[in-house]
Amino acid sequence: MLSKDTQLCISMSGRPSNIGTRFHNRLYDELGLDFVYKAFSPVDLAQAVAGIRGLPIRGAAVSMPFKEQVIPMLDALDESAKAIDSVNTIVNDDGILTGYNTDYVAVASLLQTHGVPTDLRIAVRGSGGMGKAVVAACRDTGFTRGTIVARNVEAGEKLAAQYGWEHSREVPEGTDVLVNVTPLGMAGGEGEGRLSFTTDEIDAATWIFDVVASPSDTPLVVAARERGKNVITGAEVIALQAAEQFVLYTGVRPSDEQIRTASEFSRQDA
Amino acid sequence: MLSKDTQLCISMSGRPSNIGTRFHNRLYDELGLDFVYKAFSPVDLAQAVAGIRGLPIRGAAVSMPFKEQVIPMLDALDESAKAIDSVNTIVNDDGILTGYNTDYVAVASLLQTHGVPTDLRIAVRGSGGMGKAVVAACRDTGFTRGTIVARNVEAGEKLAAQYGWEHSREVPEGTDVLVNVTPLGMAGGEGEGRLSFTTDEIDAATWIFDVVASPSDTPLVVAARERGKNVITGAEVIALQAAEQFVLYTGVRPSDEQIRTASEFSRQDA
Repeated sequence: MLSKDTQLCISMSGRPSNIGTRFHNRLYDELGLDFVYKAFSPVDLAQAVAGIRGLPIRGAAVSMPFKEQVIPMLDALDESAKAIDSVNTIVNDDGILTGYNTDYVAVASLLQTHGVPTDLRIAVRGSGGMGKAVVAACRDTGFTRGTIVARNVEAGEKLAAQYGWEHSREVPEGTDVLVNVTPLGMAGGEGEGRLSFTTDEIDAATWIFDVVASPSDTPLVVAARERGKNVITGAEVIALQAAEQFVLYTGVRPSDEQIRTASEFSRQDA
Repeated sequence: MLSKDTQLCISMSGRPSNIGTRFHNRLYDELGLDFVYKAFSPVDLAQAVAGIRGLPIRGAAVSMPFKEQVIPMLDALDESAKAIDSVNTIVNDDGILTGYNTDYVAVASLLQTHGVPTDLRIAVRGSGGMGKAVVAACRDTGFTRGTIVARNVEAGEKLAAQYGWEHSREVPEGTDVLVNVTPLGMAGGEGEGRLSFTTDEIDAATWIFDVVASPSDTPLVVAARERGKNVITGAEVIALQAAEQFVLYTGVRPSDEQIRTASEFSRQDA
C-alpha cells in the first residue's frame, strides 16, 4: 500500500519495457521497502530531470537515447560514468543529482566473478554506448590485449584509440574471448535470430559474452553452449546492473538468490 | 501490478496526508484502471510542474501553499479555477496543463444536492483560499444575501466586495446558514476541539456547513446534529472534490457508493 512517505524511483527510456518496473517492485515487496518504481518515456528530458529534483524522485534509470544527453543536467558524475561519458543511473541525494553507470560496474564484476583470465585476447564486436562500457570494464579489470571489431570504421578506431586497443573489421586469429555489444540476436529488431559471430569464430574461442538480454538465450549463447564454451549472458548483465541500481536507491543489497528470482520474474512479461 | 503503461497521478502539498493516495489508489483498484497515485511534498514547485510535463504525469492535486503560486506555470484555467484564482487540480492533456478547482465544484454541488434554499441568509466564517471557493460557489448557485465573518477585516472586506456580500466581525441576526471555512475544529492544530460558531448562533440557524474534514465529526458538526440541524460536512466536500479529480484524470465516474466507500477507507489511516 502506497503512502505519502513512499519513495518513487523511475526509468526514463525512449522505448520502455516492463523489466525494470517488475524487477524493482518485486524486490521492494520482498524486502519490505517503502519504495515504488514506474517506467516513463519522457516527452522532454530536461523537464523530466527537473521533476526528479522538484517532486522529488529518489532515483532514475536512464536508457537510450538519453545516456549522454543527460550528463550536463546533473550535478556530479561517479567514476563509473566518468570512465565512459555515459549515465544509466541517477541518484538524488537531497537535491544533488549524481550520475552512475551500473552497466560498467556489472560487466567488470561479471568478468571477475566468472574468472575470465586477463591474459586472454578479447574481441568486442560493436562500437556503441554499451561498447564503451564493456571496453572500459575490460581495461579496468586488467585486460590489455583487445580488438574492437566494428563495421563503423570511424567509431571503431576512435573507441580503440581511447583504450589503447586495436581496431579491425574482422575478428583476429587467436581470439579467446568474443564479446557481442551489437543488437545482433536481439528480439524485435533487424538483428532478431542472427548470430553475432561466425561458428568458426565461436569454435576457436574459449569464452563467449553476449550483452543482448532479450532473449536471454540469444543465437550466440545457444551456439556457445552447444559447443561447451564458457558463457556470460546479457541476462546476467541486466540483472546485476539493476541490482546495483537497487543498492544505490535503497542502500539495501539483496541476496544473489533474491536478485536471480526477481530477474526471472522481471522477464516473464517484458 | 504496475507496468510501463500505468499512468501516474500525484498530489503536491506542503503537508501531505495519506487521504488522496488511499482514495485514488483504492478506486483505481476497484475499477480496474491502470493508474497509480502518489503524494509529494515538492522541494521546488516550478521544477515539480516541469516534471508533470516532462515525464509525463497525468494529473496533480494542488494543496496549500501552492494553489495560487501554480497558476502562472499552467497553460490554461478552467472556469472553476478562474472564478476564484485558485487551482487545486492540474490535468495534463498531451503537454497542455489546465488548472481546475474541484473544491468550488464540490461545494456548489453539495449546496444543490442537499437542497439548501437559495433565499436563505448565509454567513461564512473565514476569508482564506477555501473561503473564496465557498463564496463563489454560493453566489453561482443563486445565493445573493451573504456575510463574510472574518477577524481579518482587510481580507474579509476584500472578499465581500468581490462577490457583492457584506463583511461583519459578528454573525448577523437572522442568519439561516452557517458555513465554517476557518481551521477551528481541525485536528492537529490550534483550532483542535474548538467550536467555530457559538451555540446561540447554531440554535438560531437551520443549516450548518463545515468544510473542516478532519475529524469528520467536528465540534460544529456534533453540536449541529445534537440540535437536529441540517448538516453538510467537510468529509462530503473532500470526498466529492476528490471524486471530481478522479473523473478529470481517468474519464471514469465512480458510483456514489464507490465514492463513499473509498472516502471512508481513505480516512482510516490519514
